Amino acid sequence: MFTPIKNTKVYEQVIEQIENMIIDGTLKKGDRLPSERELVGHLKVSRTSIREALRALQVMGLIESRQGEGNFIRENFENTLFEPLSVMFMLQGGKPDEIMEVRKIIEVQTANLAAEKINEKQLENLKRIADTFKTSKNEENNVKLDKKFHYEIAQAAGNFLIINILNAMSFLMDAFLKDARRKILVNKENFKALAEQHGRIYGALKLHDSKMASDEMKKHLDFTSKHIKKNM
Amino acid sequence: MFTPIKNTKVYEQVIEQIENMIIDGTLKKGDRLPSERELVGHLKVSRTSIREALRALQVMGLIESRQGEGNFIRENFENTLFEPLSVMFMLQGGKPDEIMEVRKIIEVQTANLAAEKINEKQLENLKRIADTFKTSKNEENNVKLDKKFHYEIAQAAGNFLIINILNAMSFLMDAFLKDARRKILVNKENFKALAEQHGRIYGALKLHDSKMASDEMKKHLDFTSKHIKKNM
Repeated sequence: MFTPIKNTKVYEQVIEQIENMIIDGTLKKGDRLPSERELVGHLKVSRTSIREALRALQVMGLIESRQGEGNFIRENFENTLFEPLSVMFMLQGGKPDEIMEVRKIIEVQTANLAAEKINEKQLENLKRIADTFKTSKNEENNVKLDKKFHYEIAQAAGNFLIINILNAMSFLMDAFLKDARRKILVNKENFKALAEQHGRIYGALKLHDSKMASDEMKKHLDFTSKHIKKNM
Repeated sequence: MFTPIKNTKVYEQVIEQIENMIIDGTLKKGDRLPSERELVGHLKVSRTSIREALRALQVMGLIESRQGEGNFIRENFENTLFEPLSVMFMLQGGKPDEIMEVRKIIEVQTANLAAEKINEKQLENLKRIADTFKTSKNEENNVKLDKKFHYEIAQAAGNFLIINILNAMSFLMDAFLKDARRKILVNKENFKALAEQHGRIYGALKLHDSKMASDEMKKHLDFTSKHIKKNM
């Protein structure tokens, strides 16, 4: 299980050992980690190093600390404080075009997969959102719903890695959608167009028609990128 | 710039402030962060909280500490200690099929983009790897080269987000490729087939033929997934 630690960058090694225990399956979702005191005993390192390592794992959203109970491997990985993909993208001076490109790559195929696997509950959620788009004038809320619509489809595709990728760029997606919708809705007619596009994506998913779902998603994203470019 | 911190989860707020300074462009790649002592002064929190926050940012690969110089925003984001996508995938009990699915989604389109943008240096690197595959019997090395071949193509596509996504699942990719190649090479004939596939992908990129590049990538990945399923 644990091996006492010898080297210099101590907190890194503590993290590596915990990572390895996850990878080899010793630690699972929801498991409680040994206490700080126990970890000090097992790993033969200072309490400070243990705390640094645990804090880092908390920030990364891997473990959560529960008052009086200790540290646990998280059960769900949404809403982590730190989004590595978003932050690194900003640091590297990435451009909205690149987000568009990635959305086209991931979401067109994801819609294809989702059409096969989507369940009734997920279809209901999508329908509710698609219906709201027809009438809602609350743009702040519409931005949130727009994201929810696309993330629900990723969820329906049933691939953890895709969901994790989209969660790790959630902040970027918020900023992208807000800006894209603003540019598209400069022309009021487009309000209806966007609502119809979401409606057609939902319709294809309801029919479990993979080809139609990815075609409609592609049209929707092409429409979006056309308007972003026009209004830059 | 900095705002003194009031609330309880102190280290999280320190990180949030640093994240925000990255997002609004105050902090850029290669910039030096204020010293621990300066941060204590600006943010009015304990040195322990500052250290916890900095450690977490180091582990996440966002900053690096240079002996005697302080903490800097990293210039490059390869080889970070922590790979969020890999670790969360393991925790959620993800399956190799899902990695295959994501590879098909991302890499087929990435090859398409790379064909437009690839430069001479990148083509040379790919050619060297493709040539090595024809003769090298060192399978441990071949696994590394296989990954390098695919990551070089992602690099050539010139989208930071795609590169970051692949880097954030680098460990998964290592494990996947090692296992996939082992299963494929149960049949010795396939050694030549794999080398030829990589050669044809290189050939399409050299011609800057996007359609051919994505078709060849798709064939290569379909071949891979067929053999993984057969030898499960």
